[in-house]
Amino acid sequence: MSENSSNAPAILLVRPQLGQNIGATARAMLNYGLTDLRIIKPRDGWPNPDADPMAAGAFEAGVTVRAFDSLKDAVEDLSFLAAATARPRGMEKDVEDAEATVRIARSFGSKAGILFGSESSGLLNDEVTVADIIMTYPVNPNFASLNLAQAVMVFAAAWGAQTKEIPNEFDEREPPASRADLIGMFEHFEVELQRAGFFYPPEKTELMTRNLRNAFTRAGWSAQEVRTFRGAIKALALGRGKARIERED
Amino acid sequence: MSENSSNAPAILLVRPQLGQNIGATARAMLNYGLTDLRIIKPRDGWPNPDADPMAAGAFEAGVTVRAFDSLKDAVEDLSFLAAATARPRGMEKDVEDAEATVRIARSFGSKAGILFGSESSGLLNDEVTVADIIMTYPVNPNFASLNLAQAVMVFAAAWGAQTKEIPNEFDEREPPASRADLIGMFEHFEVELQRAGFFYPPEKTELMTRNLRNAFTRAGWSAQEVRTFRGAIKALALGRGKARIERED
Repeated sequence: MSENSSNAPAILLVRPQLGQNIGATARAMLNYGLTDLRIIKPRDGWPNPDADPMAAGAFEAGVTVRAFDSLKDAVEDLSFLAAATARPRGMEKDVEDAEATVRIARSFGSKAGILFGSESSGLLNDEVTVADIIMTYPVNPNFASLNLAQAVMVFAAAWGAQTKEIPNEFDEREPPASRADLIGMFEHFEVELQRAGFFYPPEKTELMTRNLRNAFTRAGWSAQEVRTFRGAIKALALGRGKARIERED
Repeated sequence: MSENSSNAPAILLVRPQLGQNIGATARAMLNYGLTDLRIIKPRDGWPNPDADPMAAGAFEAGVTVRAFDSLKDAVEDLSFLAAATARPRGMEKDVEDAEATVRIARSFGSKAGILFGSESSGLLNDEVTVADIIMTYPVNPNFASLNLAQAVMVFAAAWGAQTKEIPNEFDEREPPASRADLIGMFEHFEVELQRAGFFYPPEKTELMTRNLRNAFTRAGWSAQEVRTFRGAIKALALGRGKARIERED
């Protein structure tokens, strides 16, 4: 049996019933870079065409699926196993949430595996016994109702949160404004507000000015935004005929 | 409009298309105690019977749904909004992952809302603009393919991870063994191993003993497990006829 070449844990579905859930599991996995999917005794055999629509292309894009006749065969190359269960088992095992399970699994790389049971009954106690720890989620005790692929998704997202970065394209912000730019903008704004009679009664000028400066400072303006806002002040002032002299520059 | 009475954020689906996804969203939410679902301009109207099977009872069990004709009406009682987007928008907003968004949302309680766009196109730029921050997930850049309810699930699970505890029923472990119990067990085991000729060559006895003790200590035995293992040692020794005298006690 070839080993998982990535550094991410395997996901093992034990006795899954619906092909749709196998597909949805693959989709959830690949979003977070998990590619080693193992299915043990799938009810409807494998391959299963029901899996394809829900996979949204995940099988072609990188998730490999291997089917096994026994859990023992499926885990023989793994060194760490967590068993996902929604109910207590009264077993002498550590019980961890998804985040702690990810922290442990990371140190085992591709030698870690997470076991999920069938849709109808979860993992059998004998199957939980082979795992090193139990993984469970802090779900609502009055409504613990994750389906199989959702349960895998919660683990996959926790894996991604600890191991992946938000892509750089999201970090395309303008450089921040210098403090001098900001102060210049405030002064420009305040002069025009003064001319417009905004500061009334006069004794409140200082408080109102401070409140405005605080609000604008909190926004974290970029240099471009400062230029835009100064243009807006100028336009408003011009519109009221109060700054015609500036029109000439 | 009545306010959300819980302390958890609202989930807002803007122009959702499939009733099934509204149901699956409600199911994902209630697992983690989110109960305030707002839908803006649902394509197929509301109520929508397609939502019920995928909700798995979440509407009856606590999720309230309100439909709105405009985003403005839907957010009027909210003080903090995060816009979930899968692609960069080049906007001057902070971009946070689910965990950071949860940390911020917690300080707003039920005055926080998370916006999710339609299945086909996500949120429009004008809709993102009303939000305070952008929330995105560190998904695989080669396979960013979360469906609507999965995207809500990732936020809901991050919410649960920071705000919920694993139920007490999972913490039903036996009390740990006392150090004296453990040492007594080691000594019993070592005596029988000595008799069985396990320690060979003799000069390795100390090293082998230390390795065994370390392995057993690491396992974190309960008092019951110590008793069970001592029974096992005794049985093995008896089976070899080496401890017949103990049979009499």
